[in-house]
Amino acid sequence: MLFDSPNTFGSAFRILTFGESHGTAVGVVLDGVKPGLPFDLELIQKELDRRRPGQSDLVTPRSEADRVQVFSGVYEGRTTGHPIALVVFNENQRSGDYSAIKDLFRPGHADFTYQRKYGLRDPRGGGRSSARETLARVAAGAWAKQQIEALGVSIRGFNREVAGIEGVAVDWDYVERNPLRVADPACFEAQKAAVEQARDSHDSVGGVCEVWVEGLPVGLGDPTFAKLDALLTYACMTIQAVKGVEIGNGFASARRRGSENNDPFSPSGPTKNDAGGILGGISSGAPVVVRLAVKPTSSIARPQQTIDQEGQAAEIVVKGRHDPCIAPRVVPVAEAMCALVVYDLWLTQQDLNEGTVPAIDEWDWNAVERLLEK
Amino acid sequence: MLFDSPNTFGSAFRILTFGESHGTAVGVVLDGVKPGLPFDLELIQKELDRRRPGQSDLVTPRSEADRVQVFSGVYEGRTTGHPIALVVFNENQRSGDYSAIKDLFRPGHADFTYQRKYGLRDPRGGGRSSARETLARVAAGAWAKQQIEALGVSIRGFNREVAGIEGVAVDWDYVERNPLRVADPACFEAQKAAVEQARDSHDSVGGVCEVWVEGLPVGLGDPTFAKLDALLTYACMTIQAVKGVEIGNGFASARRRGSENNDPFSPSGPTKNDAGGILGGISSGAPVVVRLAVKPTSSIARPQQTIDQEGQAAEIVVKGRHDPCIAPRVVPVAEAMCALVVYDLWLTQQDLNEGTVPAIDEWDWNAVERLLEK
Amino acid sequence: MLFDSPNTFGSAFRILTFGESHGTAVGVVLDGVKPGLPFDLELIQKELDRRRPGQSDLVTPRSEADRVQVFSGVYEGRTTGHPIALVVFNENQRSGDYSAIKDLFRPGHADFTYQRKYGLRDPRGGGRSSARETLARVAAGAWAKQQIEALGVSIRGFNREVAGIEGVAVDWDYVERNPLRVADPACFEAQKAAVEQARDSHDSVGGVCEVWVEGLPVGLGDPTFAKLDALLTYACMTIQAVKGVEIGNGFASARRRGSENNDPFSPSGPTKNDAGGILGGISSGAPVVVRLAVKPTSSIARPQQTIDQEGQAAEIVVKGRHDPCIAPRVVPVAEAMCALVVYDLWLTQQDLNEGTVPAIDEWDWNAVERLLEK
Amino acid sequence: MLFDSPNTFGSAFRILTFGESHGTAVGVVLDGVKPGLPFDLELIQKELDRRRPGQSDLVTPRSEADRVQVFSGVYEGRTTGHPIALVVFNENQRSGDYSAIKDLFRPGHADFTYQRKYGLRDPRGGGRSSARETLARVAAGAWAKQQIEALGVSIRGFNREVAGIEGVAVDWDYVERNPLRVADPACFEAQKAAVEQARDSHDSVGGVCEVWVEGLPVGLGDPTFAKLDALLTYACMTIQAVKGVEIGNGFASARRRGSENNDPFSPSGPTKNDAGGILGGISSGAPVVVRLAVKPTSSIARPQQTIDQEGQAAEIVVKGRHDPCIAPRVVPVAEAMCALVVYDLWLTQQDLNEGTVPAIDEWDWNAVERLLEK
Repeated sequence: MLFDSPNTFGSAFRILTFGESHGTAVGVVLDGVKPGLPFDLELIQKELDRRRPGQSDLVTPRSEADRVQVFSGVYEGRTTGHPIALVVFNENQRSGDYSAIKDLFRPGHADFTYQRKYGLRDPRGGGRSSARETLARVAAGAWAKQQIEALGVSIRGFNREVAGIEGVAVDWDYVERNPLRVADPACFEAQKAAVEQARDSHDSVGGVCEVWVEGLPVGLGDPTFAKLDALLTYACMTIQAVKGVEIGNGFASARRRGSENNDPFSPSGPTKNDAGGILGGISSGAPVVVRLAVKPTSSIARPQQTIDQEGQAAEIVVKGRHDPCIAPRVVPVAEAMCALVVYDLWLTQQDLNEGTVPAIDEWDWNAVERLLEK
Repeated sequence: MLFDSPNTFGSAFRILTFGESHGTAVGVVLDGVKPGLPFDLELIQKELDRRRPGQSDLVTPRSEADRVQVFSGVYEGRTTGHPIALVVFNENQRSGDYSAIKDLFRPGHADFTYQRKYGLRDPRGGGRSSARETLARVAAGAWAKQQIEALGVSIRGFNREVAGIEGVAVDWDYVERNPLRVADPACFEAQKAAVEQARDSHDSVGGVCEVWVEGLPVGLGDPTFAKLDALLTYACMTIQAVKGVEIGNGFASARRRGSENNDPFSPSGPTKNDAGGILGGISSGAPVVVRLAVKPTSSIARPQQTIDQEGQAAEIVVKGRHDPCIAPRVVPVAEAMCALVVYDLWLTQQDLNEGTVPAIDEWDWNAVERLLEK
Repeated sequence: MLFDSPNTFGSAFRILTFGESHGTAVGVVLDGVKPGLPFDLELIQKELDRRRPGQSDLVTPRSEADRVQVFSGVYEGRTTGHPIALVVFNENQRSGDYSAIKDLFRPGHADFTYQRKYGLRDPRGGGRSSARETLARVAAGAWAKQQIEALGVSIRGFNREVAGIEGVAVDWDYVERNPLRVADPACFEAQKAAVEQARDSHDSVGGVCEVWVEGLPVGLGDPTFAKLDALLTYACMTIQAVKGVEIGNGFASARRRGSENNDPFSPSGPTKNDAGGILGGISSGAPVVVRLAVKPTSSIARPQQTIDQEGQAAEIVVKGRHDPCIAPRVVPVAEAMCALVVYDLWLTQQDLNEGTVPAIDEWDWNAVERLLEK
Repeated sequence: MLFDSPNTFGSAFRILTFGESHGTAVGVVLDGVKPGLPFDLELIQKELDRRRPGQSDLVTPRSEADRVQVFSGVYEGRTTGHPIALVVFNENQRSGDYSAIKDLFRPGHADFTYQRKYGLRDPRGGGRSSARETLARVAAGAWAKQQIEALGVSIRGFNREVAGIEGVAVDWDYVERNPLRVADPACFEAQKAAVEQARDSHDSVGGVCEVWVEGLPVGLGDPTFAKLDALLTYACMTIQAVKGVEIGNGFASARRRGSENNDPFSPSGPTKNDAGGILGGISSGAPVVVRLAVKPTSSIARPQQTIDQEGQAAEIVVKGRHDPCIAPRVVPVAEAMCALVVYDLWLTQQDLNEGTVPAIDEWDWNAVERLLEK
């Protein structure tokens, strides 16, 4: 089964998210939690803070506290082994912003399809299609991340591209120190200028987010419907504003020859990693590289052509506090979704058969050219 | 849940595939079949024939009959409402081809990860990671396709690119009449030459496959984890050799401005379809466009550097009858996977609430510019 | 699907319960809710009040308000089609009651297995094994009940037996007017006396709860693993204190002859209903009858032999406010669980094929002898 | 998960059964098989032979070879870690037997509900509701049984009652040596006479089957919807002809006092096992005892009142080769279903937290009075 309910993600470790952008609360229930583990709400809050609006003037100036509370599943600082319900109450909703557009369908948004499918929607915001829903994912992903970090796996992301300007260098220390979460200091000023220019002209720009999963053992994933690449891709495509996902050299591979594209093996490991750490749907031990196409924010404050609920032509200007580029805030969400996939697979496939192949523990992944230039 | 078992796909309509490339048989069980429907095995065979090896000298010359049999779930030409088991026995396995490489890991293949994960593999072929497993998907997808066609939905695919040569025109009548399943007659000769040149130099090339789903009502998909785009992407990424998937203008959207990227609404429908028929994870009524990056075939008959089971350096030449370009055979598989997603969602969400929005039935999708140039 | 995780129940309509007896809150998320339906929190509260402690001196004198709140999925009194989170905060926990027994394992309780499985437990109460968890089920079941009542299906229960005293008459009007929820006024005084006598001697008694589902169409359930009887039985066995479940004449059928046990058909319907409304796992249109064996409350205030956490012999007296007979409070829980099964199956199998058999709508189920004497 | 589709059972280890009684084949796909395990088809065949018709003149004289074949998932005598498809072709169908009754609904059978639900049925037999479907379960259960036996768990069953005559002694060596699979030699002759008398008068009798699961560790099962007792009960209720299931002293507990019913703990273990090895839904280490009410065979060769497809009154005589008592053949099916539950839970919950309770390994379960007299 692809999914059980539209609101559930995962298998051995699974989450259920609930809550609309302008309802009482947004929350998530973590299910499949091991008992007896230390539970630190501040570590979860910390990830939420990375996703939060209002971090710089390159993202939305809305400032929401987004304080997370725990309702169940924790006793004296340890997990009980039962569902952990995490809840963030909605505040600062500024409903007034939305009144002018309540009967219009915002282009690029789910308004039209949502109204048609459910027959009603809260004009104050996107309901379940709001990016606010990702708050629940980041909270859950923060937990998953902690668990897999304890297993030696790291997950971290950055924006490879912003506004079509592509970075080359990957300076991880730099990523969390700049508001665009880009990794190449040499490109930052140009990227920043592009975002500001879009913002000042009431427009928006997109980006390409890249997530690296390092430290995976060989053997996560399966050759058929549980291919690790397919699961990561699916997870990332469920994120609002993502329009495409690729693994390793992705679309670039389609323009290559096999002799160039295959990653040869050497006694010290693969000599390159165009495959992005996955062979036949199964992790190879090399770093897993996932790339997400993030479209420009749909909400823009310049006039757009649309229709109203009666189908009549209308002009819309989406006011409010919107991100001129959502990509910086997608990074923690993408990390969270990847963490959920990896932790779930780890729990599901924990008794891997190690087979008879060479001990790859001695392989030096740092010596591998991680990704050829595209 | 992402999936239940690595071998199961779907929810209300679901399939379980079984069988290895060199075992007794490959098969699929269709579950969630409605009772009383006419069942025509020849319609399923017809789709299998589209996927079959040996269709031209641009794909593998292996010629397998791949005759499908039905074991259950059909009585007097009608479905009983119970599982339909379809089985194709394996023949013509030419095991001799593989003996020289049985202790080596083919670059680009699952050999290394498979051996490490499962501890054993059949050296005669890829087991479950073989493209032969897709036979089961095509058989199941053929059924799904028939059901959704009866609902007015069509699914068809072609190769937008082969060997980096991108077609522009989309001539559907041409697609099944050329061995590469490309849609632009003007490019065929160049594409064919590129494939032949790769084949003659014992190499391979990739392609970009594009699937169109037309005739969907508004409302399939959900704003959270059952986004239609996420499900289609996942489905396509489970196909062997696919390294990336995008919806609508996909990665190109990341390089655009919001004002340019949003599809405006007009009283006669959206004025363009860069979103690829999906807004907020929900079908908008416009044609759904999915694009798959297909890597060059990993099996190539020129020497490659690898290691053996003991981790010693070795040279490998993958002989046998391999496709210089697998993309033509990916087309029916991609159609099948998309059909499985759409039919499953249709069954799951059949009592859509039609809401209060304008009757889009009058909208003229043919007047929509389906995809801007990328 | 019945459950994915130990905390999830249902498939097309599914619930996830969270919360421990002495944590912050107990809650439930309803998933698979149709959009646009009227939502009345008071109707849910009403069912919770039926389950609540402190209703009479024949059940526990604890008095908890158990006020339910809604966090999501409702907008202006209507369902949004998205998850509805219902939360009841815990109050009045009287933790003092439990301190004397925190290192001892209460006989008949989950203490021993819980401690061993999870490695930790909250000594103030049963955690997830507490009957307090059923509050979440009743809240969810109240919603399911409303939905199936709208479809013409009624679900109601009573106690057929209390303390081994079995009622014969079934006076539905009487059931909610007596604190034991028995249906035969002629037996009430004897049953009440037995409960009081148990209570006064610091002991407890059990009962047999019976649920009737009336108004089902033919065709709910499936002949294999989704047999309606199997699903109802499973649902009821998940209720705390239930040790056996039977359908129709159940165990009595094992002592009969086929000629006596089979329900003959007549042109006006089956002439009796020993099968309990289910044939081959599929509803027959006759009333469905489910019977649950409810064991005597495990918590009793008389000395019992046990061991402590070190395995040393000890004596335990379980003080606190416990029900001398839990069966009256099981009735609404059993109704809730049956409602969840029926509503879920209805959604899953809504497009039943009505086949060619006679219109059973004309059959007079009231004329059927519903259950022979056992 | 228990089931996703009506034809699927299990979660980490799951099966999908297919095939109708008079179709081409009955089969089962085992999914979630660990790689590298020895696979012996004869051990599976052996269990099938226990279920097979024609074992004595107390069961049906039909003689079917029921030879099982393996289509996938096994390579050189070891599991590959991928789905194992097991198939038994149907033979010896004697279709002639059924022609006289093809338009009539057999009382006690699924004919009426099946026809109404699916709109068509194969008049030659029960289709999916036929007991022949259990063949697939026994094949799968045989594998599960082998795996849990390797873990030190045994599952075995017998008939506690036949035709209302209840055995007291449990002589395991005797069970497989008598055609009724009863365990008390002292009762066999009376039970046999009752079956023969029923057979000779063209009637049938029922029985009570009892399954013991011994050697389970503490900790299988969960306090909410994955209670071990609920799962076992569900599994057993999916078996054709079963009308009730109880755990431990089951319905008898409802007539007891708590002081009598609770199983006290002593330093050497519980002093009795009325709970049937499960506390709060979790295995306690004591033997798990499940009891199934098996109704008398519905097919009897004496005239019964029924209706035809047009709803007209008719008389039916069900000829053919039917079991006068199906209970002996239910025993291996019940064992199989319990084995599937236990193995699945074991895989799901394999990393149990052992907590801090006393090492129950020293407890002497043989010293426990397993079940008080009911």
